[in-house]
Amino acid sequence: MTLANRNMVTIDDLSRGEIEAVFSLADQMADSRDKQYGLCKGKIMASLFFEPSTRTRLSFETAMHRLGGSVITASDVGATSLSKGESIADMARVIGSYADIIVIRHPWEGAARVVADYAGVPVINAGDGGHEHPTQTLCDLYTIKKERQTIKGLRIALWGDLKYGRTVPSLVYALARFGATILFRPGPGLELPEHVMNKLGSEYTGRLERYANLNEKVKQRLFPLDAIYITPSKPHQLANIPSVSAQVELEEGVDVLYVTRLQMERLAAGEEGEELKRDYPVVDKKLLREREFEKTMVLHPLPRVNEMAREIDADPRSNYFKQAGLGVPIRMALLALLLGSQEAAITEDKEPFNRPGEHPLYRRGFGVRCANPRCVSVQKTEANYIKPEFKIVGRRPVTLRCAYCEHEVYPRYVASTDWHEGKLDSKKYHSADSHWSTKIKPENLIIFDSASDAKARGFKPGHYARADGEK
Amino acid sequence: MTLANRNMVTIDDLSRGEIEAVFSLADQMADSRDKQYGLCKGKIMASLFFEPSTRTRLSFETAMHRLGGSVITASDVGATSLSKGESIADMARVIGSYADIIVIRHPWEGAARVVADYAGVPVINAGDGGHEHPTQTLCDLYTIKKERQTIKGLRIALWGDLKYGRTVPSLVYALARFGATILFRPGPGLELPEHVMNKLGSEYTGRLERYANLNEKVKQRLFPLDAIYITPSKPHQLANIPSVSAQVELEEGVDVLYVTRLQMERLAAGEEGEELKRDYPVVDKKLLREREFEKTMVLHPLPRVNEMAREIDADPRSNYFKQAGLGVPIRMALLALLLGSQEAAITEDKEPFNRPGEHPLYRRGFGVRCANPRCVSVQKTEANYIKPEFKIVGRRPVTLRCAYCEHEVYPRYVASTDWHEGKLDSKKYHSADSHWSTKIKPENLIIFDSASDAKARGFKPGHYARADGEK
Amino acid sequence: MTLANRNMVTIDDLSRGEIEAVFSLADQMADSRDKQYGLCKGKIMASLFFEPSTRTRLSFETAMHRLGGSVITASDVGATSLSKGESIADMARVIGSYADIIVIRHPWEGAARVVADYAGVPVINAGDGGHEHPTQTLCDLYTIKKERQTIKGLRIALWGDLKYGRTVPSLVYALARFGATILFRPGPGLELPEHVMNKLGSEYTGRLERYANLNEKVKQRLFPLDAIYITPSKPHQLANIPSVSAQVELEEGVDVLYVTRLQMERLAAGEEGEELKRDYPVVDKKLLREREFEKTMVLHPLPRVNEMAREIDADPRSNYFKQAGLGVPIRMALLALLLGSQEAAITEDKEPFNRPGEHPLYRRGFGVRCANPRCVSVQKTEANYIKPEFKIVGRRPVTLRCAYCEHEVYPRYVASTDWHEGKLDSKKYHSADSHWSTKIKPENLIIFDSASDAKARGFKPGHYARADGEK
Repeated sequence: MTLANRNMVTIDDLSRGEIEAVFSLADQMADSRDKQYGLCKGKIMASLFFEPSTRTRLSFETAMHRLGGSVITASDVGATSLSKGESIADMARVIGSYADIIVIRHPWEGAARVVADYAGVPVINAGDGGHEHPTQTLCDLYTIKKERQTIKGLRIALWGDLKYGRTVPSLVYALARFGATILFRPGPGLELPEHVMNKLGSEYTGRLERYANLNEKVKQRLFPLDAIYITPSKPHQLANIPSVSAQVELEEGVDVLYVTRLQMERLAAGEEGEELKRDYPVVDKKLLREREFEKTMVLHPLPRVNEMAREIDADPRSNYFKQAGLGVPIRMALLALLLGSQEAAITEDKEPFNRPGEHPLYRRGFGVRCANPRCVSVQKTEANYIKPEFKIVGRRPVTLRCAYCEHEVYPRYVASTDWHEGKLDSKKYHSADSHWSTKIKPENLIIFDSASDAKARGFKPGHYARADGEK
Repeated sequence: MTLANRNMVTIDDLSRGEIEAVFSLADQMADSRDKQYGLCKGKIMASLFFEPSTRTRLSFETAMHRLGGSVITASDVGATSLSKGESIADMARVIGSYADIIVIRHPWEGAARVVADYAGVPVINAGDGGHEHPTQTLCDLYTIKKERQTIKGLRIALWGDLKYGRTVPSLVYALARFGATILFRPGPGLELPEHVMNKLGSEYTGRLERYANLNEKVKQRLFPLDAIYITPSKPHQLANIPSVSAQVELEEGVDVLYVTRLQMERLAAGEEGEELKRDYPVVDKKLLREREFEKTMVLHPLPRVNEMAREIDADPRSNYFKQAGLGVPIRMALLALLLGSQEAAITEDKEPFNRPGEHPLYRRGFGVRCANPRCVSVQKTEANYIKPEFKIVGRRPVTLRCAYCEHEVYPRYVASTDWHEGKLDSKKYHSADSHWSTKIKPENLIIFDSASDAKARGFKPGHYARADGEK
Repeated sequence: MTLANRNMVTIDDLSRGEIEAVFSLADQMADSRDKQYGLCKGKIMASLFFEPSTRTRLSFETAMHRLGGSVITASDVGATSLSKGESIADMARVIGSYADIIVIRHPWEGAARVVADYAGVPVINAGDGGHEHPTQTLCDLYTIKKERQTIKGLRIALWGDLKYGRTVPSLVYALARFGATILFRPGPGLELPEHVMNKLGSEYTGRLERYANLNEKVKQRLFPLDAIYITPSKPHQLANIPSVSAQVELEEGVDVLYVTRLQMERLAAGEEGEELKRDYPVVDKKLLREREFEKTMVLHPLPRVNEMAREIDADPRSNYFKQAGLGVPIRMALLALLLGSQEAAITEDKEPFNRPGEHPLYRRGFGVRCANPRCVSVQKTEANYIKPEFKIVGRRPVTLRCAYCEHEVYPRYVASTDWHEGKLDSKKYHSADSHWSTKIKPENLIIFDSASDAKARGFKPGHYARADGEK
């Protein structure tokens, strides 16, 4: 089966079977590296890094060179065309007419999707703000799988900065799909963002327990859990999960400790970070002496700063340098597949997780815009051509998920296209948490962020419409 | 015929027949792209960008990779050797001893010529300040030619910033040589620079009419023309051009609308640009509904900002993304030719435009220097080895054109080498607009920018020598 | 003989025979350039430049491309991972898992050694602060050898900035080993650093005469010598060197004039440099007319600023552009050898210079740290894992040479491990210039920079221990 011309913007762009196919091709790539040279001869990869990154960029470029392909690089793009006011879409169309595949890192969340929409060639997201970093996740899963043969049923602790790191969202979605149990151990104030938590809790087949709901025994365990996510071992067991099996899970010990560094550079201006640095949980020899970590493999997407002590580098449980090295065969495999230079060997794959598209969409292009200031859809150079698009993920109150950055939006008002046909009187808008929000059919839904917007389009306040500013 | 070891510093470095040969090789390159891989195997292109540019740089690098060649890149050169005070000539000699061909972009006008003078390998100018950008012009002409089969006789409107864009001078010279009619439609204050206008009006076979000379009917046409340049359809008709055929030309409609963006980054310090932005002429659906533009192809060297509305992207008349893509086969063809990896198929080519060299030269190395502060010849690190060189393009007053940046210089005084042989008395200098300026033979001409310079060399003021400062 | 997997961190990492083998392979590389293409096919060179450098970087990248290999480049690394607080060791491990060979330039002295310690692949030092730049030296020697067939017995004048240039230390050590006589002619205040002088005077077989010891005739020679280093023509003659043969040496004329530019960028903050620029010795036509320089070849590592006049560029004695070009075959040869793509043809090689390792080592990891603020071992991100290591190069007073940056350290106190076994009383520390410093066996030596350090480890001041702060 071919994956040619597919994009990898989010980790959910590949099915589980396709991901497994990437892994087995990566095995081949690593085993017979010299044979792969020439596989992508004459192909050109554009490596566009709008944020500095030595590691990820060089890993991709190494992969392309190992396949015998060529690379064109822009690693300092901040200073170039885009500062001349060019849009991402234009850039994507032009580079897409040069190269055979595009790898992009960009500070704006959702930017890789826009590039994919316009480039006309396959696009790989090498990190778009805090949104996703799907190839890092492939590399993480591949490292786990090589050591443990499977991901299903493993207990994987995510450790440190779960808020700002872009590797974390991609990883938790994938772990959920592969049937792992996830233990969240954030630094203070660095919990998984609410919208990621919500997506994890509602779109995949497992069950998310927040800290408040954990029982006391779990809370008193060695490390202060913030939440736990449990995938049933078999899909049909979902309904049968015992009320809280978290305790049982923990007694078994942790299979993987996934450490992340504090993303100082993503702190909001004014945030000092000194306190964060002081209270950041450190992984060291002492911690690894605990019973839970006896057979734990330690991973880290690197670079590390002080959150992981150098004294554990020689410990056989430390796998982070191996993990970095595996990024090359994984990316070789992915490039070869998306360029169509290799076919994917996919076994039967009936993946039971909710595929995207099952939520109704809202894309009227007016009334509501994404509230995330780092979302690509609200940037000055982009907002005039990107049509806002949302999944309607909650009905009362109406909750939207931006199709670009996946942040949630909570609009204030709803109205219906159905009601005002011919009858101007009935053109009314209502509070987004009133019963009207569920009564209006999704396909008829009109959404407004402000009463003035609604009025500007000829709607009058209904009985259930609070004024702007009112809570 | 071989073009090996030729340079492409200005568009006039290739004859019309040679340009046509580049086009037919580009056709081959595009038709059988995979066959070209390996054509330049083992050759190295140095890509030296002293100003940021993603698009042009990646287009050249893509072209070289498609030919199987290798690329060495310096895209951040501002920060490196040159900031250590090195001259362009030294840099050129060193890089010329590494690479087989050099592509250079530099902020100083005439810099590419200096590189070509010293490198010892072929040099391609990828933009030298506001001077020229000849490969963009090849790409523009090629796009037009693929759609319209010929350039001769087409009516081509240049739209927007004709003052700061480096693509414009190269383009107008080439259009003149290929026999097009050029309609100038600048934004306010963004007219074609005087020296470009002068060169266009005097060096090529066509006829330039300025706004003041256009008749009223032409002035009242939809778009406010600043000037029109008409090439006679046959060379011998030159003398027979009807007094003003501009009106007739316009009635036929515009074949090509060449849009350029406002080069904000080239505005002089202090220039605000706000007003410019406000009054800048925009190309949008509304404009394209006018009768003149019914069959117009729209081109733009990109990046665009707001001067060309995204709403016309899907219009079949919009060809700018195609134009960007054609930059690759054009550059493949050019690289292969200059590297000697391909021969040029040149048909009989008796080009009737004035070739360089027909003006007498002034290169005494003293008395006058280029007045353009962006000219390479006046830069601190370069002035001590670049010998000023000028074409004498006007005699009364004496007008010089710098051989590096092609800006005009209007020196104040003239003298003669012929007169002072033995007779110290007759060593006199005269005003450059006096009758002496035409009386002295070009080969005897000595030129001074200031009376003190003239005096320092032993000359005394003649009857026709105004004092410094006097008008 | 294979040089595969060897590093080139300092010029002393290759024996003289190995250096000669690089030269003869470079001859082959230059003679049959096209044949070499493909020799390193499928191999990847990482080009990591933490300081800007166009010339050296592009020379290495050209060399790798000429061998048919691939290149991954990070030329702007200041802005990337390392600013996220990553250590050099981590970076080295990661990049070492991507590439087959690493070329590194870094501002910290000793950085290349750390990279070599952790990368797991061969590492080439392309300049580490002011420490060494060994491939420039290969290129210098190779240029001399191609013109003069031998280096032995030549008189080579080092001219200009001997203090800050990183090319100078590598070059003087190599010249000493190859048996040249070195004449030091520094700009004012730009003498060879004391630790380089000391190493040169003590580790190699020749004899160093400082200015004060030169006789008057020598001092009155045309150019103001600071010191002279004379290698005996045969090793066993060492003891027989006549008291001062410097005068005789100079009468023979200078074979090579090695000019360096003032390294403005390395001046300490606050140092103006204006005076330095004014008094810097210039090499021009006038100088070259002197009898001593009649047959001199002029070299310069480039870039030059004003210290070498352009008027001598056409002089047949000027070899600096040739020297720059020879950097490519030299680096091709070195890459091919370290990658194991070629064997080294080494003739019998009994090199009589002192090989590293003959001094006892001090590496207790406490008590003393390198005093050079640019040394890699004292940087914030590195100090927590790099164990200080020193050669004990002097005994009274104790003098240490840092194993990373080779600067000298003069610690204040010594103690012995031998004395305090069981007898707490005898745990005493003594001044480093007392007789105790020679009495304690090197393997028992404990060294302290401060009395408080010594006391913190339970030592009491001995009779010969001056207090902190006392001279």
